[in-house]
Amino acid sequence: MSYFSHLECSVPCGAEAYDPRVEQHLCTCGAPLLARYDLDAARSWKKDSLAGRESNMWRYRELMPLFDGEQPLTLGEGWTPLFHARRVGESLGLERLFVKDESLNPTNSFKARGLSAAVTRAARLGARVLSIPSAGNAANAMAAYAAMAGIEARVFMPRDVKIPFIRECELYGANVELVEGLITDAGRIAAEKGRARGWYDVSTLKEPYRIEGKKTMAYELGEQLEWRFPDWIIYPTGGGTGMVGMWKAFDEMEQIGWKPAGPRPKMVSVQAEHCAPIVRAFENGAERSELWQYARTVADGLRVPKAIGDFLVLRAVRESGGTALAVSDEDMVHDMRVLGSQEGISAAPEGGAALHALRMLIRDGRVQSTDTVVVFNTGGALKYLDVLG
Amino acid sequence: MSYFSHLECSVPCGAEAYDPRVEQHLCTCGAPLLARYDLDAARSWKKDSLAGRESNMWRYRELMPLFDGEQPLTLGEGWTPLFHARRVGESLGLERLFVKDESLNPTNSFKARGLSAAVTRAARLGARVLSIPSAGNAANAMAAYAAMAGIEARVFMPRDVKIPFIRECELYGANVELVEGLITDAGRIAAEKGRARGWYDVSTLKEPYRIEGKKTMAYELGEQLEWRFPDWIIYPTGGGTGMVGMWKAFDEMEQIGWKPAGPRPKMVSVQAEHCAPIVRAFENGAERSELWQYARTVADGLRVPKAIGDFLVLRAVRESGGTALAVSDEDMVHDMRVLGSQEGISAAPEGGAALHALRMLIRDGRVQSTDTVVVFNTGGALKYLDVLG
Repeated sequence: MSYFSHLECSVPCGAEAYDPRVEQHLCTCGAPLLARYDLDAARSWKKDSLAGRESNMWRYRELMPLFDGEQPLTLGEGWTPLFHARRVGESLGLERLFVKDESLNPTNSFKARGLSAAVTRAARLGARVLSIPSAGNAANAMAAYAAMAGIEARVFMPRDVKIPFIRECELYGANVELVEGLITDAGRIAAEKGRARGWYDVSTLKEPYRIEGKKTMAYELGEQLEWRFPDWIIYPTGGGTGMVGMWKAFDEMEQIGWKPAGPRPKMVSVQAEHCAPIVRAFENGAERSELWQYARTVADGLRVPKAIGDFLVLRAVRESGGTALAVSDEDMVHDMRVLGSQEGISAAPEGGAALHALRMLIRDGRVQSTDTVVVFNTGGALKYLDVLG
Repeated sequence: MSYFSHLECSVPCGAEAYDPRVEQHLCTCGAPLLARYDLDAARSWKKDSLAGRESNMWRYRELMPLFDGEQPLTLGEGWTPLFHARRVGESLGLERLFVKDESLNPTNSFKARGLSAAVTRAARLGARVLSIPSAGNAANAMAAYAAMAGIEARVFMPRDVKIPFIRECELYGANVELVEGLITDAGRIAAEKGRARGWYDVSTLKEPYRIEGKKTMAYELGEQLEWRFPDWIIYPTGGGTGMVGMWKAFDEMEQIGWKPAGPRPKMVSVQAEHCAPIVRAFENGAERSELWQYARTVADGLRVPKAIGDFLVLRAVRESGGTALAVSDEDMVHDMRVLGSQEGISAAPEGGAALHALRMLIRDGRVQSTDTVVVFNTGGALKYLDVLG
């Protein structure tokens, strides 16, 4: 059974609860909506019950957006390996360095988690056409789940997105439209076209369920580390749903008694040197980011010049005592090769960026040799092979 | 603990047992060696003990090539999803069609299983340089595990192999040599170079452990189908280790009481129209295949003109009451798109070939609508995107 109850504004602005049994996107105030659960009742859900459950993110179904009796649309997303990266750890003087390897998800990236949850709910709500603006991986994931559900998929990506992202969408039968500009432009065009046609918009945080998929990364970290959470979580940040989702998961786990209240992992948001709106806002003490001009990076997933959930990312980083760091393309590709050649991990440049950010934190004396660190590799190398040419 | 005891000739030719605590490759008669276990003792190993074990193929460690106290080199290989392919099944009139999706392995293919086992043992035996001839995916898997183990990797592939296979090897730090010809030529050159230099050869079936990794696919099918085995297993066959491994697993499972003796799944070996040595030998009633001339296909993994274990594949196909079928490139690419657009599965052409072979068996009235069928998708689409252009 699930303790899923209602939707609520993320600000919160004071608006009343929203009913998840009908289609919902944003709060009337324009902010993202969050799924809420009956967490008091969920205290009777014990973590011992997890042993032997399905090897995907739906093992946490009690706190997932399902109603009783519903089955999720699953392609095997989540429950990804957490590798003890001994060789890279040793080279950095860290005994407890772990890599959460999201490349082992369907469609080769962490985006599968969010879209499994979002498309599951969209299908239950009777959606006939799904639309998404994407920097690449989210489009692939959406197209795969839509195919499985038998729902039409409309995908909007920047014209200069790497070819594999386009081909993979087509393989799943999605309708692909390439637009001038960046993901923000793709989002504007998708929204304009979809409004008149009644498309169901699954843009990041413009529907409440992708974050529910992403939050499972924090549940998994807890379970895989036997409920001793790491000191640091280093996370590449484009739209930021992963960060926001994990922060929400810590809240939930504290309320149901799976994590003691008190210190949480320090969250480090990693961006690209030439597209770092969160980093700039963090450094300026701003609550929200500003649209980054002339955004460019080889890490397609980091090419998000302005995220709708920026204030939620910044809130998580600050409350955790973490930080935000920008990495050059050269450095992220270097560390992509390090993960490959030292650990056998297929990393996207985004994963390389996270490892490089760890180097910066060690150099600055912020990460200590006795700290437990989790670096996220959000996707595999295969769609980014051009950067290795 | 493991019941691993010794190595033995696969023919068997009558040679004495081989000691697995030293490096072993082929039998003195030239045939592959197989790992043997104390199966009488293993009858005390109960399948109930599997619940809650690690989500990779080493969950079957009692019948894997490990000595007590050893840890495997794992990147999360195996325990891949078995999807109930409802939409494609319905279009074919089958209620119980399943796809075993090996694309969710590290390095995107089933080859990770074999190489996890082989490199684990090679590392324990003190190997300093590993060499492999490969049509593509095996090289990627070997390079990844070698990187993790800190062992030098030497890879030999056909010059016209698709670019992603080369780039992925390089990402893991392998030394790549491209040779004129096919995998058989690569094997000859690798062996010549390696002999003088003392390289540890991990060619298919030229060492005894890749097959042990592959056999876990059959254990997983049992566990995932609650020990009711399918009527048909449809399997794309290049080197054939997967087929041979699963057949060996049925033997083992019967002997330890996990599977009743009696009918086993009918094994269908699927090859490419222009590289079908097993199919030709099957049709001719031959015990071994002959080298296929001018082999060509877009499915790199099927471009194996002569397999060292051909007689073992043919034996499994015949003993099972199965068959061997050849599929055209056009048909396999068509069904690769069907798996993508109907089920959201990222399939290699090899997976498409297996689905097309199923169509042929239905058309010929061999597969009945009430049969349970498992089609293997041995890898993901991402390294084969050129075929979709």
